[in-house]
Amino acid sequence: MNSKLLIYNSLSNKKEEFKPLHPKLVGMYVCGPTVYNRVHLGNCRTFISFDLMVRWLRYLEYKVRYVRNITDAGHLEFDADHGEDRISKRARLEQIEPMEVVQKYTLDFHQCLAKFNVLPPSIEPTASGHIIEQIQLIKSIIEKGYAYEKNGSVYFDVLKYHKSHQYGVLSNRDIEELAHNSRDLEGQADKKNPQDFALWKKAEPLHIMRWPSPWSDGFPGWHLECTAMSTKYLGEVFDIHGGGMDLKFPHHECEIAQGVAVNGKSPVKYWIHGNLLTLNGKKMAKSTGSFLLPDEIFDGTSKLLKKPYSPNVVRFFMLQAHYRSVLDISEAALEASEKGLDRLIYGYQMLDQLQNGSDEYEFDFDQWLNQSQTVMNDDFNSPLLISQCFTAVKFIQKIKSSGKKIPPEMIKNLKKHLGLFLVDVLGLTIDEPNNSKTNTQLQDSLIKILIDLRNEARQNGDYSISDKIRNELFQIGVEIRDTNLGTKYYIQ
Amino acid sequence: MNSKLLIYNSLSNKKEEFKPLHPKLVGMYVCGPTVYNRVHLGNCRTFISFDLMVRWLRYLEYKVRYVRNITDAGHLEFDADHGEDRISKRARLEQIEPMEVVQKYTLDFHQCLAKFNVLPPSIEPTASGHIIEQIQLIKSIIEKGYAYEKNGSVYFDVLKYHKSHQYGVLSNRDIEELAHNSRDLEGQADKKNPQDFALWKKAEPLHIMRWPSPWSDGFPGWHLECTAMSTKYLGEVFDIHGGGMDLKFPHHECEIAQGVAVNGKSPVKYWIHGNLLTLNGKKMAKSTGSFLLPDEIFDGTSKLLKKPYSPNVVRFFMLQAHYRSVLDISEAALEASEKGLDRLIYGYQMLDQLQNGSDEYEFDFDQWLNQSQTVMNDDFNSPLLISQCFTAVKFIQKIKSSGKKIPPEMIKNLKKHLGLFLVDVLGLTIDEPNNSKTNTQLQDSLIKILIDLRNEARQNGDYSISDKIRNELFQIGVEIRDTNLGTKYYIQ
Repeated sequence: MNSKLLIYNSLSNKKEEFKPLHPKLVGMYVCGPTVYNRVHLGNCRTFISFDLMVRWLRYLEYKVRYVRNITDAGHLEFDADHGEDRISKRARLEQIEPMEVVQKYTLDFHQCLAKFNVLPPSIEPTASGHIIEQIQLIKSIIEKGYAYEKNGSVYFDVLKYHKSHQYGVLSNRDIEELAHNSRDLEGQADKKNPQDFALWKKAEPLHIMRWPSPWSDGFPGWHLECTAMSTKYLGEVFDIHGGGMDLKFPHHECEIAQGVAVNGKSPVKYWIHGNLLTLNGKKMAKSTGSFLLPDEIFDGTSKLLKKPYSPNVVRFFMLQAHYRSVLDISEAALEASEKGLDRLIYGYQMLDQLQNGSDEYEFDFDQWLNQSQTVMNDDFNSPLLISQCFTAVKFIQKIKSSGKKIPPEMIKNLKKHLGLFLVDVLGLTIDEPNNSKTNTQLQDSLIKILIDLRNEARQNGDYSISDKIRNELFQIGVEIRDTNLGTKYYIQ
Repeated sequence: MNSKLLIYNSLSNKKEEFKPLHPKLVGMYVCGPTVYNRVHLGNCRTFISFDLMVRWLRYLEYKVRYVRNITDAGHLEFDADHGEDRISKRARLEQIEPMEVVQKYTLDFHQCLAKFNVLPPSIEPTASGHIIEQIQLIKSIIEKGYAYEKNGSVYFDVLKYHKSHQYGVLSNRDIEELAHNSRDLEGQADKKNPQDFALWKKAEPLHIMRWPSPWSDGFPGWHLECTAMSTKYLGEVFDIHGGGMDLKFPHHECEIAQGVAVNGKSPVKYWIHGNLLTLNGKKMAKSTGSFLLPDEIFDGTSKLLKKPYSPNVVRFFMLQAHYRSVLDISEAALEASEKGLDRLIYGYQMLDQLQNGSDEYEFDFDQWLNQSQTVMNDDFNSPLLISQCFTAVKFIQKIKSSGKKIPPEMIKNLKKHLGLFLVDVLGLTIDEPNNSKTNTQLQDSLIKILIDLRNEARQNGDYSISDKIRNELFQIGVEIRDTNLGTKYYIQ
């Protein structure tokens, strides 16, 4: 490979060459969901982006330990140090035990990401499963003098930390402004400074999710869990930490402060943040009803869309944008992605129909492969990788339509590397006979069988059968059209 | 309903009327897997049995809180107090971090049970996620005087416990024999009596999974976790505790002793134990190669079977035996179940073809429904419920073949209650156009078109086409079978 992997580091705000702490090994931590409601499409984009990165790192033959946590305790409303625990609140509303809420929405999260063909992480630790580690972490932050106890709660002393280190390095916040921005809120009274954040909160008498600690029966602060779990499974300093843009401040800023306070070292080499998903140009908001739930897209029940789109199409749509740009979802965009994905898959499958020979052709495979790797090495540029795939498919179609014969090695190479990019790297599902999992895939395979039978019958001049197939398909809402890209179908 | 639910209680060794501690609510705990290797079919039978019970309790309109744990720490080889932690050992062999082993085999377990259509539990707690609760439990057992510390480990004092309470109530073991049966083994030296069992084990220097405690950096004993987690999520005393027969001793015996020692109360009202699954009359054993992995059955790669069987068929096969009897799996038995399940599903679907009218018929619906509920209320007798379903199907087929017309209410009642038994209670999957997700209807019509084309081709003696259709369908996971009830299809 001629190119080196470059990663845009949110800490330096520039692209840097990726140099892992240990050759061939990558430690990567991504903030997972707080499992108190159904995962929304914006979250899905974040996890699909990091799935792409893990897949590319593995393509580069790194052994990746990918840790993605589940927040099942300690995450309060408004991401603040006051208000109700998000999971306890949902438990109260649904009248079940908090851990039943956790189970319900963890299952929903896993099922949703599985539909998007997102690979599971290597380790998926939970906040409630690491209370001991978090208590030990608080103890050492207190020992180092960067935290104080007040009325059974423990707070991180941001101003004191800022004297010797810099608070705000990631989000470039001004510490004075932070003071003004922090409203004077219930539960803030115990803090020395408004910028301080909670490491341990004393539980109210009715708070269900509570654990004993040296300071009180209570629960850990939200920012603490990721430091505790990333340290336990990846070490005090590790390669990559990712999350959605919205976590940059305060969550990731606080993680850095906690890490530096305890170990005197910044915990993360490369910070990566994924950008927003908007809907018709606006931020999705449950309040305004302007939002999309993944399942509503898949089963076509969303009022905002005319027809359903498969997870495969939605994933492809998302990867057509670079993870650092804002992506706007709309019916038109999804339709375009659906057509584009059809073309890619169709072209890839057309490889099997090419004939071996040694005719002249204009396609420099090595240059194409090298270019494809180079764009992905340039901060995981999936849109450019996708256009590389289109270039290959155009070539395949040109060969097919011209009836030319090309060398078997060329067909073999294209089959292998285009397949690697589409399936292994982009994580798309290609409707090959053997991997028909979801209904849409099975449906697609069934229609393809019928189309083949029809075309065969036509070739044999058996028009009664070919018409019968076409008409019966039409009756059940499947329209067949013969295009210059071959026979295609449309579902009413 | 005329009958009351009777449950065979392993504690009293007789059937008892089920009386929940709180009306309409049931607390149920089942010992989950130790996630250090792929789940084997015997485990699957256990979890399918308890799935049946949960489904029946919900049919009876109980609100069930079903807790099934994941053992990800503390389970040593030989289920003993010595030897290596099962997960650490696998981690060493696979050269990955123990929690990566946990993640890998937890995913395998979830995927496998999902194929069997086993419903997820309400809460799925992990041993490593409840170390604090286990440490607190040990403290109180020590306070009560039933445990002692030795060289950083803590043991339960079985003989002292036996003086004031009875040890062995569940397994009816004689405490003296236990002494003779316990070999003198490494790590046993710290024990006062050979019958004692570990509550906390001091970790060897190289042991990775370790937590701080008042006694040593170490890990909890295997028996402790279930007491800690069942108490946390279901209370000191709860309704039902289940598990495989092999867990009766020592695991469940020790759970009782721990509960009684702390709370002075036996923790469980009804103990339920599922029986063994044997293969061609012998206990399955990896060592002899005489065992079946679920996936090998589903994809037909098992050397011990001629053809693949769907999870739906295997589940049905298991439910054709009562959970307390030993069940032997063999090709002949699976084939018989496959045919039987076909008949049931076909008969159920035939309901749609019956005509409304008021001809004479011999079928007492109320008596049938009542009888069906009675057999399930008799200690969850699924084989008898299945034969009730066959009775209904025989009636349906008789009406169909005789061309008789029966009242619409009768058709409606059969449709509703036979459906409830097959789908909701037995948890079988019925390929019905309307009862599953998106596109099933279209899918169904597509397959029907293909089946018609195939049968047409066969009638015209055009076997190349009819075979082509059959084979291509099989490749995408749709199996066509010509039964004496016509051509039917099954989706793998």
